[in-house]
Amino acid sequence: METRSTVALTGRDELSMAYTPGVARVCESIAADPSLTRHYTWVPNTVAIVTDGTAVLGLGDIGPAAAMPVMEGKAVLFKQFGGVDGVPICLDTTDVEEIIETVTRLAPSFGGINLEDISAPRCFEIEDRLKERLSIPVFHDDQHGTAVVALAALKNALTLTGRDPGETRVVISGAGAAGVAVARILLEAGVRDLAVLDRQGVLNSERSDLTPVKQGVARDTADHFGRTGKLADVMDGADVYIGVSGGSVPEEVVALMADDAIIFGLANPNPEVHPELAHRYARVVATGRSDFPNQINNVLAFPGIFRGAFDAHATAITEGMKLAAADALAELVGDELAEDLIVPSPFDPRVGPAVATAVAEAARRDGVARR
Amino acid sequence: METRSTVALTGRDELSMAYTPGVARVCESIAADPSLTRHYTWVPNTVAIVTDGTAVLGLGDIGPAAAMPVMEGKAVLFKQFGGVDGVPICLDTTDVEEIIETVTRLAPSFGGINLEDISAPRCFEIEDRLKERLSIPVFHDDQHGTAVVALAALKNALTLTGRDPGETRVVISGAGAAGVAVARILLEAGVRDLAVLDRQGVLNSERSDLTPVKQGVARDTADHFGRTGKLADVMDGADVYIGVSGGSVPEEVVALMADDAIIFGLANPNPEVHPELAHRYARVVATGRSDFPNQINNVLAFPGIFRGAFDAHATAITEGMKLAAADALAELVGDELAEDLIVPSPFDPRVGPAVATAVAEAARRDGVARR
Repeated sequence: METRSTVALTGRDELSMAYTPGVARVCESIAADPSLTRHYTWVPNTVAIVTDGTAVLGLGDIGPAAAMPVMEGKAVLFKQFGGVDGVPICLDTTDVEEIIETVTRLAPSFGGINLEDISAPRCFEIEDRLKERLSIPVFHDDQHGTAVVALAALKNALTLTGRDPGETRVVISGAGAAGVAVARILLEAGVRDLAVLDRQGVLNSERSDLTPVKQGVARDTADHFGRTGKLADVMDGADVYIGVSGGSVPEEVVALMADDAIIFGLANPNPEVHPELAHRYARVVATGRSDFPNQINNVLAFPGIFRGAFDAHATAITEGMKLAAADALAELVGDELAEDLIVPSPFDPRVGPAVATAVAEAARRDGVARR
Repeated sequence: METRSTVALTGRDELSMAYTPGVARVCESIAADPSLTRHYTWVPNTVAIVTDGTAVLGLGDIGPAAAMPVMEGKAVLFKQFGGVDGVPICLDTTDVEEIIETVTRLAPSFGGINLEDISAPRCFEIEDRLKERLSIPVFHDDQHGTAVVALAALKNALTLTGRDPGETRVVISGAGAAGVAVARILLEAGVRDLAVLDRQGVLNSERSDLTPVKQGVARDTADHFGRTGKLADVMDGADVYIGVSGGSVPEEVVALMADDAIIFGLANPNPEVHPELAHRYARVVATGRSDFPNQINNVLAFPGIFRGAFDAHATAITEGMKLAAADALAELVGDELAEDLIVPSPFDPRVGPAVATAVAEAARRDGVARR
């Protein structure tokens, strides 16, 4: 990728305007009225894509230098699908306090912060505290991008199978960034019977080994219905399985699910339940892969979410904005809704604008828009 | 300005390559061999343009938000004249330790650090300590960009007036970032009789009010020839006046200079000696302005210096590289050398490449090149 000027600089006059002495007038205007930043700089259209390199794709803690290609790829997608200028920032620290400090100090340079590939549970604290400190959108895509697209896909899958969210039994395998965020957004969308599992089994308050974040998830999910045990225990009769953990679910466990089951195996490149196996027991199947139908791909969400937040000059990305993004994505499928088409294609040109419009409207409803 | 992809992203295959899952292979390669960063990412061609907004142009401490237009302008010039991708970083801190910490943590994201508009004397410590800590080029343009172009111009002015650097009496008015750096580079270029003044007068070791940086300058300059007093005292018989202070030199003081004097009034927009007045007493006159001949403009130096450093994969920008840049600039004027043409035009297309080539060669000579 590259940076470049959006205006031509062809002679002495343009040089004087782009740089000293002409630029001094622009600086003085902003010093007098900081809101002019949005008219005179690239800041309001620019997102820092920040990582510490600790949880890069499925590769784990490969460090900031090796994480750069993912951040560059992300910047390219931000531009292509949202018209947002992305700047990769790979940090040479994994300390939570240092990351928060550093991003806070960088904030005047950017219109928003996209956190990326930061390991759990550190990612939760970093995002929460940055949201408190900054008055620009802060969004951890591994959590909320995945959650928004998974919710959109699930809404359409529930429609297809004639289910109501409040009456649907959902199992989420994986309690990292994506698993926790998917659980939270499903609760907000009306799902009540939800079990989230980490490697030791179902998160519930009988366990003494849970982090504070997992304790919160346990209280809001499995505790209500007394769900306990291992994967096989909660898969028995489950309507929906969402895998965000890696690993592989044995066929005999998949076979325990309810009729017309819904299976999302989102691990890349190897889904927790291979589509071929999943289709033997489920009616709707989705993966994270582009070579199967129903790809749950974050790129459906993050470019439009930041586009909408920037268009509204939002000071934050609220839960309402995420839910609005999921609704917009689900609705875009429209009359084409079918078992092999529950989310739009990333290359559907309506996706970015539809998400952006819904997100900007939600920002205004939620009182975080500045225009 | 904007960021954008340098490759087209038109379908599912390109999407898989630019982002997950294709990008994983690139990350794994870099994790195994970090030097591959230079082939697979934009890092080796990218410079962070870092400011804290404390000394912006002549406007002073206007803060990071209001400084952004200057950093964007700088990024545009980096690209246009050096093919270097610039990323503006405006920091929400003015604390020396915090700035050093923050830039150190950002370093994996960039191939070089250009410090900009940070007030003296903090800028000296920040640059020195970052140079120690980082193995990428760190360059404070307000110091060294100005110094390189001023040296190039002075070399040609000395040639025109038949002077030898070692026999030339130079007065520098201003002991901030630019004044200190100009003094240092002139010493390296063979000037011996040099007096540097701040608002209280000539820097020399009789004074008890000097910062450590100014004490060092005093020992290396006025102390050797016992220069003391105010501007009028050292201007009496001086060959060269270089103003990097703002303010205005009275005509009766200008009149004290030697025959065939050289006057550089570099303050913008008001030179310390207006060219009309200067020409009454001097043979060669330069300013920082584009509407008079002989514009001493940093843009002649910084794009080519970083281009050359990046081409050589230099781990630092050495004194030798700066001197080589000044020589290349001075030589470019060639046979056209005249009293109203002592530096090339910024729009002379030979400038960037000539500086880059000289700087890359010097990097190899100085042992800081990695190719």
